[in-house]
Amino acid sequence: MRIKLDLNCDVGEAFGRWTLGDDALLMKHVSSVNIACGYHAGDPSIMRQTVNLALQENLAIGAHPGFPDLVGFGRRTMGLSTQQVYDIVLYQIGALQAFVHAQGGALHHVKTHGALYNMAAYHIEYAQAIAQAVLDCNPQLFLYALAGSDQVKVARHMGLSVCEEVFADRSYQDDGQLTPRNQPGAVITDVESAVKQVLSMVTQESVRSVNGNEVAIQADTLCIHGDTPNAVAFADQIVQALEAEQVSITAPRLSELSF
Amino acid sequence: MRIKLDLNCDVGEAFGRWTLGDDALLMKHVSSVNIACGYHAGDPSIMRQTVNLALQENLAIGAHPGFPDLVGFGRRTMGLSTQQVYDIVLYQIGALQAFVHAQGGALHHVKTHGALYNMAAYHIEYAQAIAQAVLDCNPQLFLYALAGSDQVKVARHMGLSVCEEVFADRSYQDDGQLTPRNQPGAVITDVESAVKQVLSMVTQESVRSVNGNEVAIQADTLCIHGDTPNAVAFADQIVQALEAEQVSITAPRLSELSF
Amino acid sequence: MRIKLDLNCDVGEAFGRWTLGDDALLMKHVSSVNIACGYHAGDPSIMRQTVNLALQENLAIGAHPGFPDLVGFGRRTMGLSTQQVYDIVLYQIGALQAFVHAQGGALHHVKTHGALYNMAAYHIEYAQAIAQAVLDCNPQLFLYALAGSDQVKVARHMGLSVCEEVFADRSYQDDGQLTPRNQPGAVITDVESAVKQVLSMVTQESVRSVNGNEVAIQADTLCIHGDTPNAVAFADQIVQALEAEQVSITAPRLSELSF
Amino acid sequence: MRIKLDLNCDVGEAFGRWTLGDDALLMKHVSSVNIACGYHAGDPSIMRQTVNLALQENLAIGAHPGFPDLVGFGRRTMGLSTQQVYDIVLYQIGALQAFVHAQGGALHHVKTHGALYNMAAYHIEYAQAIAQAVLDCNPQLFLYALAGSDQVKVARHMGLSVCEEVFADRSYQDDGQLTPRNQPGAVITDVESAVKQVLSMVTQESVRSVNGNEVAIQADTLCIHGDTPNAVAFADQIVQALEAEQVSITAPRLSELSF
Repeated sequence: MRIKLDLNCDVGEAFGRWTLGDDALLMKHVSSVNIACGYHAGDPSIMRQTVNLALQENLAIGAHPGFPDLVGFGRRTMGLSTQQVYDIVLYQIGALQAFVHAQGGALHHVKTHGALYNMAAYHIEYAQAIAQAVLDCNPQLFLYALAGSDQVKVARHMGLSVCEEVFADRSYQDDGQLTPRNQPGAVITDVESAVKQVLSMVTQESVRSVNGNEVAIQADTLCIHGDTPNAVAFADQIVQALEAEQVSITAPRLSELSF
Repeated sequence: MRIKLDLNCDVGEAFGRWTLGDDALLMKHVSSVNIACGYHAGDPSIMRQTVNLALQENLAIGAHPGFPDLVGFGRRTMGLSTQQVYDIVLYQIGALQAFVHAQGGALHHVKTHGALYNMAAYHIEYAQAIAQAVLDCNPQLFLYALAGSDQVKVARHMGLSVCEEVFADRSYQDDGQLTPRNQPGAVITDVESAVKQVLSMVTQESVRSVNGNEVAIQADTLCIHGDTPNAVAFADQIVQALEAEQVSITAPRLSELSF
Repeated sequence: MRIKLDLNCDVGEAFGRWTLGDDALLMKHVSSVNIACGYHAGDPSIMRQTVNLALQENLAIGAHPGFPDLVGFGRRTMGLSTQQVYDIVLYQIGALQAFVHAQGGALHHVKTHGALYNMAAYHIEYAQAIAQAVLDCNPQLFLYALAGSDQVKVARHMGLSVCEEVFADRSYQDDGQLTPRNQPGAVITDVESAVKQVLSMVTQESVRSVNGNEVAIQADTLCIHGDTPNAVAFADQIVQALEAEQVSITAPRLSELSF
Repeated sequence: MRIKLDLNCDVGEAFGRWTLGDDALLMKHVSSVNIACGYHAGDPSIMRQTVNLALQENLAIGAHPGFPDLVGFGRRTMGLSTQQVYDIVLYQIGALQAFVHAQGGALHHVKTHGALYNMAAYHIEYAQAIAQAVLDCNPQLFLYALAGSDQVKVARHMGLSVCEEVFADRSYQDDGQLTPRNQPGAVITDVESAVKQVLSMVTQESVRSVNGNEVAIQADTLCIHGDTPNAVAFADQIVQALEAEQVSITAPRLSELSF
């Protein structure tokens, strides 16, 4: 029976004069963070401050590279070449890593952001480019990717340690994939149902699909959204439910992952 | 008698669709390069390509961080806080270093660009912030700084290995500083005079000032401008003159510098 | 006796995913707004929305151009050439004007932002460049500038209608200028004192300086800060005090200004 | 028989320190220009200079808005919302128009750039958003759009005067559309064939498709590429061939277009 789960959250998504979310509070509830690297959000000063906060909380630190689209917050698709995807990912990992090393920490993982995350899940060449950038930076880094996606397979095949990411507030289809947001039942708004889904994924390695079927899923890390009003309250309930089931909230270490 | 001199050149200063200078040709004439890091010029794809070229030529690779001012090419003064200077320098070094490491190389030095270079020479707090960023990235890195400037002293005091940079086409004042561009005689347009000045600085550790006095100067590295029409021809003449005097054109290694 | 005063506020200073201040609420308390134009804040979508809000409130709409420094919010000095200042100001006015015209409105004024505002107050060439850009866009536009500054004189001399801007929460020196923020007594934190200062400036055309002397000042428009926590409450008190003295809160029209 | 043809060229595509093409020379060969507006290329200073050059040559001036993607030169697809497309197009037209008006000229047309041009040709909602932005700026402006595309129909239906754009160096399919670049015969490299195609389009309102069939086409304006090495020589040959056939090279005026 599985007894560990990572809770990750996107942080450092302020920019210059503008703030976003309450990173300090959110960091009390998660085991790992994904820090924006200046392309979709974040700037060098915010990156330094966010790394500092994360190290104080003893969290696993990930780079969170996105498309070069500040005004679109990296959420708009962009037609980059595969080579450009490799280049922007390596650039951003390197920049964040410098702040982590400067403060005596070590980078733990990479999770791409927004449209780059979504596109990479099923765009084999993007997935390869991202995996290669991570490998070229440090082959010991974990890659966080959508559970059951092509990206998981591609990155594992290339030798990376992959953490499969699941969601508490999104329903799944019979093939193990997320129900698209434009379809009915895509978003789970009921907290109790969300908690139940997480427990099933973690303890049974299974999720009940939107059609009512049991579907196998590997849940290495759970994404906690930071920019919704009740994000912290929601995270709190998840943590309590998991702890009641003796699930340990902790970031993966190399020896603990199945490959 | 001094027998070594580094020749450095700014490269990788294209951006997206736009090109600038002939990096491949210039790299045949220098021993080290300063690669733009995306803030005043350069983008991730150009950085990767430029690192690749430099490694092929076996050149010492430096990061060339500048102000976040693409349209101004980093040549306009900006009122950043000291903390912000540290942050943007560390960010840019980290990003470039990722490309160097990914291709099996090692970063050799840091030289700030344009207005940041000029301001740092005599702005103690900026000089400290830059030195700290370099130290926090890797204390083995060299810092290239204006010969005889306050920045040289500040960075050495903080423990960095500093290469003092001189210019062939600029005249010097009695205090060892560059004649400001808006004063008569600031720019040396005659190639023969330029070569003579370089030879004197390297072999005699002295330069004849604009007033005709001999002034002590330490010339560790000579800046070759890459964006002037006759840059390559000029570099070629300098190299020939230096070689005729048995001066070796080579980038500094840690054990070779005076501290 | 003077019986009119304009209250202006900076709005539209969100950017992409990020918000700033409560524009809709603030607009209930002022007679004119300065809308960011995309260089220090604001993006095309926010500009359209903010223009729409302002027209609904029947406010005088101004362009609020700043330095091209998003991460610094236009608050950092930048060494632009005079020509570049003209160019960026005209660009930003033109962009905002398109949204105002598209919605059936008319642009009323221009007020530069942050470091550009501060520099223009006493940098004659910058003041000239800004005035020329406004004139070249539309000579009927008002320019909002720091009361008593050189910019006021320069712009009037060039033929612009200038509104002199005063502050409720900043003290003045004997020469009519703002006490620099790094000096004691620069900021007025007591609301009652602030209201008293405003009433004196409007009804007596005089302000008691930080040294206790009465100094002549022309108060055409009062700046209401929008990004402080108690901005709205503060504006509310100012408005009530002014109305109790029969001062009308209204934006200037061409025939009403003294030249 | 048709006796007029507009020759248009993209200009003002430099940025800051970087140059691109020889605008001054190209402007000698065309009747209208499309000036970049700062999003994919161009900056306020270059826009001012380019407007000045175009007015000196008495050319019809168009705004050339693109995606906000400087590093990608506006050539990469981006998933903007329809509303965002409207907003960025209106913003850029307004900015350019300010420079045209400041120099005493009048804006003549709008032609979108790169990926935005290509997407708009067959993306009805994008085409509507662009047409609405042009109408909201000035309903007298022409829109330049791909000959025979859906965008032409959409914009005409909304009341705009549309100039259908054809290409000399691209082959056409039986449905009147361009042969995609990844298919054989897409690009016409032989200058003689290119000139012949242009003459047929202009004088016969017909083009021989890549399959050898005669296809009806309306050629109001011909695009001259400015960034290829032999662009000017090519333009020169086109002009000579057209003049030999008594075709007048001139930009459209409102009364001359068929609607």
